[in-house]
Amino acid sequence: MASKVKIGIIGAGRIGQVHAQSLVYRLPQAHVMAVSDPFGEAAEQCAARFQIPTSTRNHREIMDHPEIEAVIICSSTDTHTQLICEAAEAGKHIFCEKPIALDLAQIDRALAAVARCGVQLQIGFNRRFDSNFRHLRETVAGGGVGTPEVVRITSRDPAPPPLSYIKVSGGIFLDMTIHDFDLARFLINSEVEEVYATGAVMVDSAIGDAGDLDTTIVTLRFANGALGVIDNSRRAVYGYDQRAEVFGSAGTVEAQNKTPYTTTHSNATGVHAAKPLHFFLERYMDAYTAEMNAFIDAIQQEQPVPVSGADGRAATVLGLAAWKSVRERRPVQVHEVEA
Amino acid sequence: MASKVKIGIIGAGRIGQVHAQSLVYRLPQAHVMAVSDPFGEAAEQCAARFQIPTSTRNHREIMDHPEIEAVIICSSTDTHTQLICEAAEAGKHIFCEKPIALDLAQIDRALAAVARCGVQLQIGFNRRFDSNFRHLRETVAGGGVGTPEVVRITSRDPAPPPLSYIKVSGGIFLDMTIHDFDLARFLINSEVEEVYATGAVMVDSAIGDAGDLDTTIVTLRFANGALGVIDNSRRAVYGYDQRAEVFGSAGTVEAQNKTPYTTTHSNATGVHAAKPLHFFLERYMDAYTAEMNAFIDAIQQEQPVPVSGADGRAATVLGLAAWKSVRERRPVQVHEVEA
Amino acid sequence: MASKVKIGIIGAGRIGQVHAQSLVYRLPQAHVMAVSDPFGEAAEQCAARFQIPTSTRNHREIMDHPEIEAVIICSSTDTHTQLICEAAEAGKHIFCEKPIALDLAQIDRALAAVARCGVQLQIGFNRRFDSNFRHLRETVAGGGVGTPEVVRITSRDPAPPPLSYIKVSGGIFLDMTIHDFDLARFLINSEVEEVYATGAVMVDSAIGDAGDLDTTIVTLRFANGALGVIDNSRRAVYGYDQRAEVFGSAGTVEAQNKTPYTTTHSNATGVHAAKPLHFFLERYMDAYTAEMNAFIDAIQQEQPVPVSGADGRAATVLGLAAWKSVRERRPVQVHEVEA
Amino acid sequence: MASKVKIGIIGAGRIGQVHAQSLVYRLPQAHVMAVSDPFGEAAEQCAARFQIPTSTRNHREIMDHPEIEAVIICSSTDTHTQLICEAAEAGKHIFCEKPIALDLAQIDRALAAVARCGVQLQIGFNRRFDSNFRHLRETVAGGGVGTPEVVRITSRDPAPPPLSYIKVSGGIFLDMTIHDFDLARFLINSEVEEVYATGAVMVDSAIGDAGDLDTTIVTLRFANGALGVIDNSRRAVYGYDQRAEVFGSAGTVEAQNKTPYTTTHSNATGVHAAKPLHFFLERYMDAYTAEMNAFIDAIQQEQPVPVSGADGRAATVLGLAAWKSVRERRPVQVHEVEA
Repeated sequence: MASKVKIGIIGAGRIGQVHAQSLVYRLPQAHVMAVSDPFGEAAEQCAARFQIPTSTRNHREIMDHPEIEAVIICSSTDTHTQLICEAAEAGKHIFCEKPIALDLAQIDRALAAVARCGVQLQIGFNRRFDSNFRHLRETVAGGGVGTPEVVRITSRDPAPPPLSYIKVSGGIFLDMTIHDFDLARFLINSEVEEVYATGAVMVDSAIGDAGDLDTTIVTLRFANGALGVIDNSRRAVYGYDQRAEVFGSAGTVEAQNKTPYTTTHSNATGVHAAKPLHFFLERYMDAYTAEMNAFIDAIQQEQPVPVSGADGRAATVLGLAAWKSVRERRPVQVHEVEA
Repeated sequence: MASKVKIGIIGAGRIGQVHAQSLVYRLPQAHVMAVSDPFGEAAEQCAARFQIPTSTRNHREIMDHPEIEAVIICSSTDTHTQLICEAAEAGKHIFCEKPIALDLAQIDRALAAVARCGVQLQIGFNRRFDSNFRHLRETVAGGGVGTPEVVRITSRDPAPPPLSYIKVSGGIFLDMTIHDFDLARFLINSEVEEVYATGAVMVDSAIGDAGDLDTTIVTLRFANGALGVIDNSRRAVYGYDQRAEVFGSAGTVEAQNKTPYTTTHSNATGVHAAKPLHFFLERYMDAYTAEMNAFIDAIQQEQPVPVSGADGRAATVLGLAAWKSVRERRPVQVHEVEA
Repeated sequence: MASKVKIGIIGAGRIGQVHAQSLVYRLPQAHVMAVSDPFGEAAEQCAARFQIPTSTRNHREIMDHPEIEAVIICSSTDTHTQLICEAAEAGKHIFCEKPIALDLAQIDRALAAVARCGVQLQIGFNRRFDSNFRHLRETVAGGGVGTPEVVRITSRDPAPPPLSYIKVSGGIFLDMTIHDFDLARFLINSEVEEVYATGAVMVDSAIGDAGDLDTTIVTLRFANGALGVIDNSRRAVYGYDQRAEVFGSAGTVEAQNKTPYTTTHSNATGVHAAKPLHFFLERYMDAYTAEMNAFIDAIQQEQPVPVSGADGRAATVLGLAAWKSVRERRPVQVHEVEA
Repeated sequence: MASKVKIGIIGAGRIGQVHAQSLVYRLPQAHVMAVSDPFGEAAEQCAARFQIPTSTRNHREIMDHPEIEAVIICSSTDTHTQLICEAAEAGKHIFCEKPIALDLAQIDRALAAVARCGVQLQIGFNRRFDSNFRHLRETVAGGGVGTPEVVRITSRDPAPPPLSYIKVSGGIFLDMTIHDFDLARFLINSEVEEVYATGAVMVDSAIGDAGDLDTTIVTLRFANGALGVIDNSRRAVYGYDQRAEVFGSAGTVEAQNKTPYTTTHSNATGVHAAKPLHFFLERYMDAYTAEMNAFIDAIQQEQPVPVSGADGRAATVLGLAAWKSVRERRPVQVHEVEA
């Protein structure tokens, strides 16, 4: 058996704890040696909860730790590129949450550091590891729908995040739709060339006051000729709504929601079933574990990680194109954003 | 019991026979007295099949028939407005298949004749009478989804119609999407203000050579703030795919496909269920009957018909806007087409 | 085209009207010439509603009518065998509702008359014509489940019939389960050799006072080695519950309920779908029409009818065996009832 | 936080490893200190795989270990009662796999030891912890179906176990149906008074040669008046089929199978979905973890365990009654087996 991969986690917030849980309790081939957070108490609590030997408020302890081979970057978005650069310079492999950054220049700087230092960088598009979407991808890749022609993604959160978060999130297209952009690319296996985005503020006017949208529809045109459409909402009262379909010349494949139980209750008023799993942690916990597993495996086996920095960049480009489309009320060619 | 409504059918093709079947075999309150078709043999066969007393190649026999109270116009689209005007002048109530015409000036002429003559005009948007879509509408109208925010319609034919038909059809937006435009208006109960349409030729290059598209996505913005998206394809190998969803502040309601049987077969390769009802006649036969029933009832009870000439016009306007959007590659305000 | 089959309907109650509706409005190859009912007014109303030329309180008018080729017996069960004998003597083909009779001697007398007179006799096991159960049968016959090993049938009425009806019905096994016995034989295509029945009175104690049960489970053993189980209830508050499964060496095939629409409504309390079609008329109207169609076709084409008198007899035998099993609290060999 | 519960595992086979995995990787409140197996190598491999400090071929090392508070008995059935007695005498709390034993006298001896020594004993009926069946129980307990009247359980293995296992298993009713007996008691919350069992050998004649059955139907009558039926097969080619329904005066609640993904693939041949999770480890892994969690919690909080020794005994009684019913071809009163 290969020796365990030694890990440091940077950022002990919600997603940091999700990854700690997978790494500590589900992935015996990983060994989490340290966790850092500027709020030292958060780091301590995380360390205690997951039996991590070291906690610190200074992420440099992790960067400088001679045994740590890989870092999991779970800090706020504005710190991602700086941390990627530091980790690359320190020779650590990197898992970084999405988005890499809200700005292409920063992203390019980070990707250059990664390339220069010869480390691996995996981006946290967890949905690629969900059994539903993986099955969609496999069906498409296996020719099950013939030539893919249309991808449709419905992605709705149960409730909006705090306004403070929204304000620094890059807006719905860079925070929320970015997952769907990646999923669309993953399912169709081609690059998007044109984006048309429209939207509205229907959930909370404060979201609009912050310059953001909460309900959107984005139309995509891919290089291979396929079309796509993504609809998002920040509030689905029935739970976390995560569905996708790929339609093609030989059929269609659809992913329905997942539910906590598969029962039906019939009474005088109707036939009732479970709501979708309510929150991303419930829906995607297995995907998060599979994602970490894939990262650890790639490092152990010295193989390329399954979701690259280029994938992270491409999704951000689409988010920027969507914002440009909304502002200019016209379809935008992706190369306009690149320029 | 009210006396039977006496009916003449103009056009003995496929849809003419569909309506004849409903009127003769399912609706005792109707009495079909005559059927006309320029192909006299078609009229004769239809009359024989459905025990209609009179067949003729001259539709004027129907217009001039003193007992006939209502006509069912099932002829080719280019004859609709002329026939509507004639029927209105003859004092007959009118059921006319969609689209009224491909040209707003003609439609307006026909609607003016109808208004002037004080007859009723119902347009053949049969989907409003389908139990699935009716249930969607009722759920929305009953507040089941709160404020409607997004309507999504997927509408795919099992196979393209003959090229000869496509060439005179007005193209996909006026021939096929027009049903979905009407359904979107029906479900959201508000007018569309903006249309963005995109599409491709993926099914058959001959469709492209004819200046048409076969795979499209149309984004809508409604006066009440709701958004909508319609995706169409001319070829779904698994059958007639007719689904819709209305999402809102208090939930979502979706119509799945209908199937010929509700069985599942599980074997070593998977769990297998029936394909959607394959063709519009199978899927919508009950809706066609309900549509005719509503028309006959409205006439008998001297109540307004449930789908007006204005509804027919509005859907055509959206089809024209979609074509303009595709040609100009930009979102189009509906009033641009009206002007 | 073959000339129309001329029909007389005996019994103008609910099921008589169901058949009249199919024959008059759905089956152009049939011509209903007369309807009889001891309650003359019922016959008249039925005639008026379905445009039947003749109504009478004397069924002999139908038996003696020289043009009538076939009779549809929809009268009360206690009259069936007498009417079958009269119709056979009159040279009419016969469709008779289930059960033929509650007594094997009577049934045998009727079947002997049918055989002697060379007429056809079809029994009203309408479920064989339902698209779900037909699909089950076709899947099994096509080898889709390999060797059939277990058949499971759940059959629940929305509410019990009137007590007055129950008292003359022969009890649940001869009135209600009889359909399931026939369905089990149809699906497995083998004869039942052993029956074990148990049950209780849970719905209404008056049913128990009348010597009947309202909730039952019957276990079957077939000649070909397969096993079966039928569970019945007289009251399912969510509607008419009609499901079946055939399990075998290569898989399983199940028929779910049918619903008036195939929509789902998701809100804060769950995901809600339609109840099963509520009543046998809604669930099986198409099956009733298909059943009549098969009867008319068999007569026109001089082919054997699809559900024979022997099928009617076999189901009654199973009902009698079930009652014997309940009374004697032991499994009963079918030949014990035959003896 | 309460201190960790210190655990010893007896038996390092498949189910022992399942519990080790839950205890070590999923349940931080447990600390597995030792694992024993007469095949010392199996104990060693299990210890290595799950980082368990001590492995031994002598279970007495666990019984005599002063720190170990609880044992998990995963050895072969014939050792269960002896190990329960030893553990009870050693003052350890006990989790024991089902069945306790194949013989009531032995079971009673074990339960007496447990009672005398004041330790807790939980029996491994994992299905009670499955989210589907738990939801059924909660719906029933919450009055969702009114008075429960009928419970139906379908339970089919993907393939028979090895013949060597079958020969010592106690036969299908004590090895396989025993889970369903427990589930039926759990769902209806009443004791079974009468059992009628029938069955056949359809899967493999060698099973019959071993004196066992592979396809069975068991009918139950409960003390509270409810009826039940369980159908079992040792071979479902489409996977592990685990469904249940409770029907009552106010409705019905059904648990469908669980699948690895919730997608549908529509092509020219039909609409295809995933097979049920194929094996008990896939279907019930979360239930096994929940079961261990409940055991650990009960010990930490000094509360009664959720599945008692009496529950284990009751299911065995039903298995014995089922065998008696098959042998004597008659319904058996449960008290006959007790006597």
